[in-house]
Amino acid sequence: MKINRYVDISTIEREAKKDYIDRHSPFIHCEDTAKEGEKFTVKVKLGNEYTHPDDFDHYIANVQLWNRETLLAEATFTPGTLGNKPGHVEVDFNIVPSRDMKLLATAYCTKHGLWHSDEKEVAVK
Amino acid sequence: MKINRYVDISTIEREAKKDYIDRHSPFIHCEDTAKEGEKFTVKVKLGNEYTHPDDFDHYIANVQLWNRETLLAEATFTPGTLGNKPGHVEVDFNIVPSRDMKLLATAYCTKHGLWHSDEKEVAVK
Amino acid sequence: MKINRYVDISTIEREAKKDYIDRHSPFIHCEDTAKEGEKFTVKVKLGNEYTHPDDFDHYIANVQLWNRETLLAEATFTPGTLGNKPGHVEVDFNIVPSRDMKLLATAYCTKHGLWHSDEKEVAVK
Amino acid sequence: MKINRYVDISTIEREAKKDYIDRHSPFIHCEDTAKEGEKFTVKVKLGNEYTHPDDFDHYIANVQLWNRETLLAEATFTPGTLGNKPGHVEVDFNIVPSRDMKLLATAYCTKHGLWHSDEKEVAVK
Repeated sequence: MKINRYVDISTIEREAKKDYIDRHSPFIHCEDTAKEGEKFTVKVKLGNEYTHPDDFDHYIANVQLWNRETLLAEATFTPGTLGNKPGHVEVDFNIVPSRDMKLLATAYCTKHGLWHSDEKEVAVK
Repeated sequence: MKINRYVDISTIEREAKKDYIDRHSPFIHCEDTAKEGEKFTVKVKLGNEYTHPDDFDHYIANVQLWNRETLLAEATFTPGTLGNKPGHVEVDFNIVPSRDMKLLATAYCTKHGLWHSDEKEVAVK
Repeated sequence: MKINRYVDISTIEREAKKDYIDRHSPFIHCEDTAKEGEKFTVKVKLGNEYTHPDDFDHYIANVQLWNRETLLAEATFTPGTLGNKPGHVEVDFNIVPSRDMKLLATAYCTKHGLWHSDEKEVAVK
Repeated sequence: MKINRYVDISTIEREAKKDYIDRHSPFIHCEDTAKEGEKFTVKVKLGNEYTHPDDFDHYIANVQLWNRETLLAEATFTPGTLGNKPGHVEVDFNIVPSRDMKLLATAYCTKHGLWHSDEKEVAVK
């Protein structure tokens, strides 16, 4: 079972490959620091520049948010959540951290398998 | 299998029952109207006034968003997402609607079962 | 949000309706009695006489097993698990009961919504 | 995010490490060959020799079955499915294969993270 990892698309020449990587990669959008014991919002969004199909036979079925080896939360979708239009799957999780975190997001495409984001460090004070 | 439904707590006298109902009920927070084919954010949040525990043996394990008979998205949690502190489970889903919706949210508490929100109508133009 | 409940199809006249109900209904197959603290297998299977499609735009996305108000286990599927052929979704869960149970299974079809089985009582000794 | 992979415990000396690896590893139990288009049962079971706790703060939260890069099915559990006794999480999935498969199972422990089984090849005729 292959796990695909994000690669900075500015290092890639072929347009089709840039598209392929970007639209399948989950990105973590959140602050660099959080307050201990307070609500902290983490957006997981697929693709910065390229949209992914939401077709019945080709869609993003789930997105997970991990902190090191701990699964924090998962969002699952049935095809059609984006109205069967190409788009960016996007979900905001809210967690309450107690110590420094190393967040990682995953996304699963029903045609192109499992993708891991880069790791995002969050300092908790 | 019992399905618990939200009851307006202003109609309830006993404080313990107000707390019980409010902290288990998922509430839908979104606009009343959406634009066809455009991203529409739907927040599902548990409790308006009372927080729910996030203990290992008593936590909110999942939240679902339905449109009529269609399951749009589900978020699942393992205990500890809220740092084992009482809080409001809260997740923002983003959907792309194509016609008028009747949204309903569900939440599952590992001690007190399944809860349904009131229905929320959204006009799509 | 409508919850469809199993109806004994021998009481139904119209062939299309028999088919519709049977193929969407989850059935619980297990012994009537279990031993406390020992593994107990519960099969959840869709349809006795009629098969359900496993098409990309029409499939059984999940099956749940409940004991009274407690969710014991859930199986989720992406379309194609049955090779895109009509069939009976079927999963065997193994639980370890501690007292008498009232089991109920649910199934979710991406076109025809949520279905509940009849309740199955299991005496635990 | 670390992914733990099964290691043959007969190659390991320390008893505590044998136990740690065996009880967290999902094992695939199925025939070596399947018939195209016919139901094929795949058992995923945790541990051959050692049982895993089913405590509220330490349990197996999910098990997945993959074929190469495709997620076939997932079973999720809330704590207590095994009656809060140490045991072997065990689920039978039924799939309908169309070509040769390379199956892999994963398991997620809420304390000790994600575990991958060895790959199991199945010839489909």
